Amino acid sequence: MTTFTPEIQSTLAAQGVELPSWAFGNSGTRFRVWTTEGTPRDPFEKIADAAEVNRLTALAPSVALHIPWDKVDDFGALRRHAEDLGVTLGTVNSNTFQDEDYKFGALTHEDDRIRRKAIDHHLECIDVMDATGSRDLKIWLAEGSNYPGQTDMRARQDRLNDSLGQIYARLTGDQRLVLEYKFFEPSFYHTDVPDWGTSYAQVATLGDRAMVCLDTGHHAPGTNIEFIVMQLLRLGRLGSFDFNSRFYADDDLIVGAADPFQLFRILVEVIRGGGLNNPDVAFMLDQCHNVEAKIPGQIRSVLNVQEMTARALLLDHEALATAQSANDVLGAQAVFMDAFYTDVRPALAQWRESRGLPADPIAAYAASGYQERIESERVGGVQAGWGA
Amino acid sequence: MTTFTPEIQSTLAAQGVELPSWAFGNSGTRFRVWTTEGTPRDPFEKIADAAEVNRLTALAPSVALHIPWDKVDDFGALRRHAEDLGVTLGTVNSNTFQDEDYKFGALTHEDDRIRRKAIDHHLECIDVMDATGSRDLKIWLAEGSNYPGQTDMRARQDRLNDSLGQIYARLTGDQRLVLEYKFFEPSFYHTDVPDWGTSYAQVATLGDRAMVCLDTGHHAPGTNIEFIVMQLLRLGRLGSFDFNSRFYADDDLIVGAADPFQLFRILVEVIRGGGLNNPDVAFMLDQCHNVEAKIPGQIRSVLNVQEMTARALLLDHEALATAQSANDVLGAQAVFMDAFYTDVRPALAQWRESRGLPADPIAAYAASGYQERIESERVGGVQAGWGA
Amino acid sequence: MTTFTPEIQSTLAAQGVELPSWAFGNSGTRFRVWTTEGTPRDPFEKIADAAEVNRLTALAPSVALHIPWDKVDDFGALRRHAEDLGVTLGTVNSNTFQDEDYKFGALTHEDDRIRRKAIDHHLECIDVMDATGSRDLKIWLAEGSNYPGQTDMRARQDRLNDSLGQIYARLTGDQRLVLEYKFFEPSFYHTDVPDWGTSYAQVATLGDRAMVCLDTGHHAPGTNIEFIVMQLLRLGRLGSFDFNSRFYADDDLIVGAADPFQLFRILVEVIRGGGLNNPDVAFMLDQCHNVEAKIPGQIRSVLNVQEMTARALLLDHEALATAQSANDVLGAQAVFMDAFYTDVRPALAQWRESRGLPADPIAAYAASGYQERIESERVGGVQAGWGA
Amino acid sequence: MTTFTPEIQSTLAAQGVELPSWAFGNSGTRFRVWTTEGTPRDPFEKIADAAEVNRLTALAPSVALHIPWDKVDDFGALRRHAEDLGVTLGTVNSNTFQDEDYKFGALTHEDDRIRRKAIDHHLECIDVMDATGSRDLKIWLAEGSNYPGQTDMRARQDRLNDSLGQIYARLTGDQRLVLEYKFFEPSFYHTDVPDWGTSYAQVATLGDRAMVCLDTGHHAPGTNIEFIVMQLLRLGRLGSFDFNSRFYADDDLIVGAADPFQLFRILVEVIRGGGLNNPDVAFMLDQCHNVEAKIPGQIRSVLNVQEMTARALLLDHEALATAQSANDVLGAQAVFMDAFYTDVRPALAQWRESRGLPADPIAAYAASGYQERIESERVGGVQAGWGA
Repeated sequence: MTTFTPEIQSTLAAQGVELPSWAFGNSGTRFRVWTTEGTPRDPFEKIADAAEVNRLTALAPSVALHIPWDKVDDFGALRRHAEDLGVTLGTVNSNTFQDEDYKFGALTHEDDRIRRKAIDHHLECIDVMDATGSRDLKIWLAEGSNYPGQTDMRARQDRLNDSLGQIYARLTGDQRLVLEYKFFEPSFYHTDVPDWGTSYAQVATLGDRAMVCLDTGHHAPGTNIEFIVMQLLRLGRLGSFDFNSRFYADDDLIVGAADPFQLFRILVEVIRGGGLNNPDVAFMLDQCHNVEAKIPGQIRSVLNVQEMTARALLLDHEALATAQSANDVLGAQAVFMDAFYTDVRPALAQWRESRGLPADPIAAYAASGYQERIESERVGGVQAGWGA
Repeated sequence: MTTFTPEIQSTLAAQGVELPSWAFGNSGTRFRVWTTEGTPRDPFEKIADAAEVNRLTALAPSVALHIPWDKVDDFGALRRHAEDLGVTLGTVNSNTFQDEDYKFGALTHEDDRIRRKAIDHHLECIDVMDATGSRDLKIWLAEGSNYPGQTDMRARQDRLNDSLGQIYARLTGDQRLVLEYKFFEPSFYHTDVPDWGTSYAQVATLGDRAMVCLDTGHHAPGTNIEFIVMQLLRLGRLGSFDFNSRFYADDDLIVGAADPFQLFRILVEVIRGGGLNNPDVAFMLDQCHNVEAKIPGQIRSVLNVQEMTARALLLDHEALATAQSANDVLGAQAVFMDAFYTDVRPALAQWRESRGLPADPIAAYAASGYQERIESERVGGVQAGWGA
Repeated sequence: MTTFTPEIQSTLAAQGVELPSWAFGNSGTRFRVWTTEGTPRDPFEKIADAAEVNRLTALAPSVALHIPWDKVDDFGALRRHAEDLGVTLGTVNSNTFQDEDYKFGALTHEDDRIRRKAIDHHLECIDVMDATGSRDLKIWLAEGSNYPGQTDMRARQDRLNDSLGQIYARLTGDQRLVLEYKFFEPSFYHTDVPDWGTSYAQVATLGDRAMVCLDTGHHAPGTNIEFIVMQLLRLGRLGSFDFNSRFYADDDLIVGAADPFQLFRILVEVIRGGGLNNPDVAFMLDQCHNVEAKIPGQIRSVLNVQEMTARALLLDHEALATAQSANDVLGAQAVFMDAFYTDVRPALAQWRESRGLPADPIAAYAASGYQERIESERVGGVQAGWGA
Repeated sequence: MTTFTPEIQSTLAAQGVELPSWAFGNSGTRFRVWTTEGTPRDPFEKIADAAEVNRLTALAPSVALHIPWDKVDDFGALRRHAEDLGVTLGTVNSNTFQDEDYKFGALTHEDDRIRRKAIDHHLECIDVMDATGSRDLKIWLAEGSNYPGQTDMRARQDRLNDSLGQIYARLTGDQRLVLEYKFFEPSFYHTDVPDWGTSYAQVATLGDRAMVCLDTGHHAPGTNIEFIVMQLLRLGRLGSFDFNSRFYADDDLIVGAADPFQLFRILVEVIRGGGLNNPDVAFMLDQCHNVEAKIPGQIRSVLNVQEMTARALLLDHEALATAQSANDVLGAQAVFMDAFYTDVRPALAQWRESRGLPADPIAAYAASGYQERIESERVGGVQAGWGA
């Protein structure tokens, strides 16, 4: 059985992956949102579910919020609720894609009134951050157009820069602005921040605490994502990951489910570039459990990140460098694949137990009675979803 | 100005494009459905809107229904309503993607009860066809799975064949079953009818009145769609088109909006293969007007098909064949592009007027007062959309 | 350590993967063909290299030929040479893409003289098969066009069918015709056999011994290849695999190198559909070792197929079926991934030794002195490549 | 018939598109290079052919060189030859993809000797620029790797930056360095400059005269290229275009042949961003005429750029802005498409004649006897191609 060096063990022990509150609510496609019993009705219940993931894995110390989906009257109370359950409130995500005013843009909108409203929404998000102690404001700019000619892409880019500048100016202390890019969707023709280059060019004008968010599902087919990871780390602008996986579009599947080897390559570049357990590079999930169970889905996800990190940590960098320097293509590839193909699961199970955690967190969840409890308790009310 | 031969004029006069009733309801993405004033509240209002498109263009003689979205107590009344407005009821589309029972499949489901229910739904659709006088039952099989290993693809294929066989057996007279394929969505990993090959292999076992439906938005990036048009016509199995256009996924944009030249190439192959104004090959739209006006969007769409058909009809087949036989690549391409680049719009406007139609149907719609009328009349009630 | 049941052991022992003679020659891109020392100068040397792969792995019992690249005066002598080295001559591959006459097509050409020549080339290939004892004639139809309008796709399809019919008629005994499809390249606009549907529709008209060849690199981005494997096995028309892997185009990389999980999924469907060690379904490599060492590259390749087959054989079908029937998405996925993540390499190494094979065939090759010998012996002459 | 305002006429008259010398040589795919009669044997003949394109169109005032393919003993003589024929020598393209030393990299190579050699090659290219009076050194970095793990992408990026810095330092006067990016090919796994973001990040560190080159064929499927045009113009780093078109990969087809509407959209953004007839933004072709006639292919190409520029110049910006501001999606799209669908060819033919140019340059070429002359004169010797 593989064994981990003390160094690898302490690296693994330090790892944390932020959970998205919305992963615990209902989600779906444009055709149908499937519901499940026990789905949270409010942010407090979402955080309880997230805390359960952390209790069983010690891998999910914080929970990302989405405003307005997670709006509560008293964010201080929500924060205390989280802390009581052993987790913290993390990244605050803004939303400029569900208000009628934003049909044709928000931070990019030509109409000053609407653009002002969108900026103010972000300032309100920073107010939430002040209350929750969150560090990062994450902006996924779901803006764009559906038809060529519909809008002036260039002017929107300039307005976006102005809007971001106003938002950035409101940040205090170590608060950061993290700008996510996405290849397409929900717009069909153009997206205002479609690629890492645009996000990078935008945040570079703002200041040192403006960073790029890389969502692993937001690229064109065939894109070498680990190259972008490498480049953003090199440029000092990789602020966070939204982990998930995809076969075709932004499928928001469980991280590592569609292409485990790609996740391995990404984590190798993260380690290579000093991004692992680096507070500047936040690890987050951004997933939707449309047809699978949500809490176990989140457990599976953080375990996937942990398992693949363990494989990446086993990479023999010395042997790799030697083969690379000799242009020994097959030799280098063999060293690389050896780490990937190593089955780290038994060693991880053992190591978990040594830390007082269940060897098999998914089995432990099934045996915990938690699911039965929430299914019986969470009756009535409106289940949380993207609309609420 | 280009002029049309009498033969081209009569070909154009015979052209019809079926409108989808759902194009007049609200639609959107998984993130948001945008609403507009005047949206129909029921199938009768949808058909009224469709008839308005036909009144202004003489291009849209029929309307496709979607069950259960267009379910009414009395389909005979709906049929008379349509006929009173100068249109007929066309293809009936089934729906196996919005019932809780169908979360993991319908016609492919392992559970006999659910599969029986899905088959019965199709039999009910044929009952509707009997009442409406519709010829085609169109099945878009929105079934599949999200994760490798989730399901047994092979067994599903066999069950699908059995289900289709039972449905096909219920058809009478000249009724047809048309099976649509789609590369991906709403499932993320596998789709039960993902490509024309699968649709073809399935319908070929059923009988002569089982055909393939080609939706222009349902292919992998880079697919040569006109080749598939050619092949299905050659094999005698192209039953219908769902016209729309896309940049990335199944974007359901206005036909011809994303890649006009592709639409030209498709129509050239339709003509080449004898598919134009051939009753065996139905022309339909399948679009969603998320951010643009719906009725003008439909007018624009049928005009796009008409304009591109006119260009394709202008192709000098004799000159093309001569250049092709001589392997004169640039010469053949020049003949081909000459037809595409010819501006047929003035001639079409003139020809429309000669037939008592408005030269500019979109301007005529704006001047007609119809939009103002429906916006003021259709107050209260629930606007139609994909959910109802 | 994983252990293999006797049944799995005998399955693994029966596995064979045919090697392509051209993998031992030089190859490259349109920009550059890189050469390496020791590259074979003739078919005899290619077969010697292939036999070395088989000697070390017992996995490569046959070698595919490519005509005219592997044309020799006496195919009987080549056959005896192969048999002396413990391998047989396998699939014969035709070539209609390098003769000046074929610039605009071969089996599809409008000019009867050229089409006749192309058909005759295939009849000559069958003569070779008679001499070598080969069963399969594989046709990769590298024909198409670069510009819309350049050619008449429909007429070409009909001529292709006629040509294939003439070739098929010449086959005797258990000889087969296997028609490969390819999404694109070397043509840029249209390819005459671009997808499995076209290959299937063509061979279905020929007879029972006409089959489809699935090259894993020949699909559009995002294509679910294992679905096609499933479908072709279901239809009884999967004749052979060309294994390789790709990131973007037809990259011809080592099988399993780009997406190991995809290879796993493919092999799971092969086993599910009865295609493993089924003489009707030939396993072949079709790869190019542009920058890596060729013989070790082939060893690596057959080992990759073997290792992934072993993982696929470990899949717990009973547990999988139970989870699938319960629509337990995460449970089914866990069973599936458990097989993939199992490290079969130690067990395979042990099992190899038990059969008198080297535990690590790549290390054994490095220690064998074979490479040094061919580098010193194969001096002078012209190295084999795609041009010769 | 459309008429052009004097302003549009003078804009069209100022337009120039640089021709690539290699478009006149033989080219092909990895499978075959097709030859044609009359192909130039040396750079002097290539320039003669390019001058013929310019003589007939007044659209191609300069010719790009590729070193070493266009290496001559006396570049001063080549320059005078060009000037005698009415054209100038333009961009100098370096080549680091065909020397055995560059198998594993050049400007990124780990081996200092090879990296030095690659840098020196570029310094030699600048010497050529000094002799030819060329302004731009264009670097297409055909470097990368084929397998994950083969090389250290991060270190290569740093070495690349150092190499570019050394080259940039050698530039004098208004000379510029233009860095091209390419999504994939000839490497299969990673490319050192795969996207505009990387090119931008690299050149931004060098200085004001370091720019990005956008080759229209070098993007992932579905990429919104006009967005990148807009962004690079906005950032002041769009140095030049390599025009061509593609269906799948880097197909190097005639510009505008695959997707004319995309070319229109690109030119609209060029005009919007002030890039038309702006000396900072060079227009070039980068094409290969594998199966079509080369000189007419180049004539067709520059005419395509001219025709589409004329359409883009007809765009009614006032009407467009009005519709855009009103969020009138269909209205804005109609204005946009109206320009695209306008047939500018008759007006352009008339305008050409008014300037003493042939109305139909392709017909004029066919009638000129030039092709017959070069076919009879250019006998013997070795035809130019990518290898020489």
